[in-house]
Amino acid sequence: MNAPSLASAVLDANLAIVRQGLVLSTFGNVSGVDRQAGRILIKPSGVPYDALSAEDMVECDLDGRATGNRLRPSSDIMTHAVLYAAFPAIGAVVHTHSTFATIMAQAMCPIPVFGTTHADYFHGTIPVTRPLGAHEVGDDYVANTGRVIVEAFEGIDQLSIPAVLVAGHGPFAWGRDTAEAVHNAVILEEVARMAWHALALAPGLQPISRALLDRHYLRKHGASATYGQ
Amino acid sequence: MNAPSLASAVLDANLAIVRQGLVLSTFGNVSGVDRQAGRILIKPSGVPYDALSAEDMVECDLDGRATGNRLRPSSDIMTHAVLYAAFPAIGAVVHTHSTFATIMAQAMCPIPVFGTTHADYFHGTIPVTRPLGAHEVGDDYVANTGRVIVEAFEGIDQLSIPAVLVAGHGPFAWGRDTAEAVHNAVILEEVARMAWHALALAPGLQPISRALLDRHYLRKHGASATYGQ
Amino acid sequence: MNAPSLASAVLDANLAIVRQGLVLSTFGNVSGVDRQAGRILIKPSGVPYDALSAEDMVECDLDGRATGNRLRPSSDIMTHAVLYAAFPAIGAVVHTHSTFATIMAQAMCPIPVFGTTHADYFHGTIPVTRPLGAHEVGDDYVANTGRVIVEAFEGIDQLSIPAVLVAGHGPFAWGRDTAEAVHNAVILEEVARMAWHALALAPGLQPISRALLDRHYLRKHGASATYGQ
Amino acid sequence: MNAPSLASAVLDANLAIVRQGLVLSTFGNVSGVDRQAGRILIKPSGVPYDALSAEDMVECDLDGRATGNRLRPSSDIMTHAVLYAAFPAIGAVVHTHSTFATIMAQAMCPIPVFGTTHADYFHGTIPVTRPLGAHEVGDDYVANTGRVIVEAFEGIDQLSIPAVLVAGHGPFAWGRDTAEAVHNAVILEEVARMAWHALALAPGLQPISRALLDRHYLRKHGASATYGQ
Repeated sequence: MNAPSLASAVLDANLAIVRQGLVLSTFGNVSGVDRQAGRILIKPSGVPYDALSAEDMVECDLDGRATGNRLRPSSDIMTHAVLYAAFPAIGAVVHTHSTFATIMAQAMCPIPVFGTTHADYFHGTIPVTRPLGAHEVGDDYVANTGRVIVEAFEGIDQLSIPAVLVAGHGPFAWGRDTAEAVHNAVILEEVARMAWHALALAPGLQPISRALLDRHYLRKHGASATYGQ
Repeated sequence: MNAPSLASAVLDANLAIVRQGLVLSTFGNVSGVDRQAGRILIKPSGVPYDALSAEDMVECDLDGRATGNRLRPSSDIMTHAVLYAAFPAIGAVVHTHSTFATIMAQAMCPIPVFGTTHADYFHGTIPVTRPLGAHEVGDDYVANTGRVIVEAFEGIDQLSIPAVLVAGHGPFAWGRDTAEAVHNAVILEEVARMAWHALALAPGLQPISRALLDRHYLRKHGASATYGQ
Repeated sequence: MNAPSLASAVLDANLAIVRQGLVLSTFGNVSGVDRQAGRILIKPSGVPYDALSAEDMVECDLDGRATGNRLRPSSDIMTHAVLYAAFPAIGAVVHTHSTFATIMAQAMCPIPVFGTTHADYFHGTIPVTRPLGAHEVGDDYVANTGRVIVEAFEGIDQLSIPAVLVAGHGPFAWGRDTAEAVHNAVILEEVARMAWHALALAPGLQPISRALLDRHYLRKHGASATYGQ
Repeated sequence: MNAPSLASAVLDANLAIVRQGLVLSTFGNVSGVDRQAGRILIKPSGVPYDALSAEDMVECDLDGRATGNRLRPSSDIMTHAVLYAAFPAIGAVVHTHSTFATIMAQAMCPIPVFGTTHADYFHGTIPVTRPLGAHEVGDDYVANTGRVIVEAFEGIDQLSIPAVLVAGHGPFAWGRDTAEAVHNAVILEEVARMAWHALALAPGLQPISRALLDRHYLRKHGASATYGQ
């Protein structure tokens, strides 16, 4: 994408997470990356959603440093930058405090695959990061949040499970572009809501079979996908 | 119904389940059958709801094969076809991932008759299918989903309990026509919501008496119904 | 009230319970009584809410028999009639299947006074009726529903606790007029929602003190009320 | 603020808590204080929200006595007055019966810091007052409600934890001005909702680390705040 269209896409995505009910107050931000141009565009820090324009999206380099001089980027920019560096296949990152995903993050409860809604989008358990140690909460706190996410994905394909719960904080989701990242954040919230209720009614509930998980996930993703037109 | 009116009814029903809040993303589809003409009309696969027109409803034969050549039918078409073949009294099928019905399906928790809201529409426990075995999740997966539903209704009249929970997946509801099927799906979601909460507060809760169940169900259904004008 | 104004009030109340989110489908009805004229006005049976006019409100005598010849009254008319006969201070009755009040009715869980929201409107525990016996569910079922409500109020002032949960069914609320009855039904639903959640988190929770209950209830009701202008 | 602008701010805040879904019926009131002029402005008692104008805000002295002669102040005025007297840094007080904050107040369950949403606004556990004794529920009841709040804040900075749960009643929140107080009441409700669900799923859940709490709280508050533009 060229710069104007990426800025528009990032703006639209930031507005979409509000419209979808994932955001309370200003607890949310979306970024997009243009890897060839070496740029990340992200929501500015603490600006009310209804005042945002595409020009307000803050341009940063791939290390998360703002390269313009007008607005400051979201305070979470360094988490986004660490994710872009570690996950080469992703083009956009969404962070929210959406209610049920945040509840699962607070309870430090990973989300097993309890149903095909989950399996259609996430090819396995959605992990929770370990809590950050006291020494990790200092100056480098926001980048360290990215690092524990990356740590939680050792051995997991970044696109096959495009979301994580940061312990005691909330969810991050991602995708190949902003629309996919937002969609994953929306589905994550519903999957978390359902998992919370299923677990509350049936503690110890087992996930669906590997065969059913593969069937649903691979129907929508990968070389042999058959869903849609 | 002639073809145009069935297409309109199927379109309206697909839009109604969105308006009623039963659908997240594109997780939902409604079909209608014209048994004399040997046709099923169903929502196309993966098309956004707000772009649908009556002409987009995909025509299939009673074996679930698309007979037109434009859009592909919902990926769940074979479940619908199996239900129409096994349940001769039904004219429409609704599939959603509505939140509480899906939660009960994930928890593999049948819905006993805890109240008269349930009894007014469903003449007994709403069953959960058995989980599909690994060998049933292959090429014939979607039809097998229909087959475990039919299996769960051995000895149960298809119209007296017009809904089922597919284990680890979500609800299917049906009726004599599309309006009735959608209505049953709406009531099912509320009945599931109430049952989840009643069970969470009072584990081991017993259903209402058979006498009260019959009183309410038969007031609205069958030869001696007295409800309405 | 003269006839036209009572019909309007009853219509407005029937529309208000829909607007307030207490009604799914047609599960709800409100009546008002004119004791001097010997008449009850009630919503007709099974007519969609958006098609109702004041003229559609069905006139019945105090025994619950329709005296006009156009529409049939709500199928719950006999419960209303029994309540008017037993509770001389009330002027209107509201029946809904509102979600949390119905859940508490299904779980047969009376609602203790857990907070001042409750105490501002209900001067004690909101009772649950006993379940109806098999012999009470026959021809006289709807009147018997009224009778078990009356039974549950032995020794309780009808206006000091203007609502009840019918076991396995749902709530009835009442008041001196239709506006008060609707308001009580709205508050009941919120009180039930809060009590469900408080009990789920803290099983065995004790009610607030009698002193606090009296303070709040008597601030809004009775000879020494001080609330409002 | 001069009188007209404080009246407008208090009106806006009273309307905002309704718009934000924190208020059922008339269970809510906001006041603001002008300490130099020795005045509190507060919502009148029992007036419907949609009929309120800025002129209706009732002027009281710092002891909570109405100084005008038109409308009576909210019945909770004395709680507000006690809080203004004890907490010199605050400029506005919000009282609601918002659902989850009230549920936690009914369950007498303080809200530990389970996540960064909480830590961004409240620098520690949100306390519950002790229940009022029978002798405290007499004539001086409303002022005593303020006194048990003040008691619960012994040793706690009033602005670092700008909210409290009154046992068996509901939440009070405050801030330096009306906008901040309303914002704190909104965040409190979401924090309470999340804490309820986290505790229900994971009884005995431990709070986040002191280091993470400090990191988030101090990022948004105090001399070294870095959030926003």
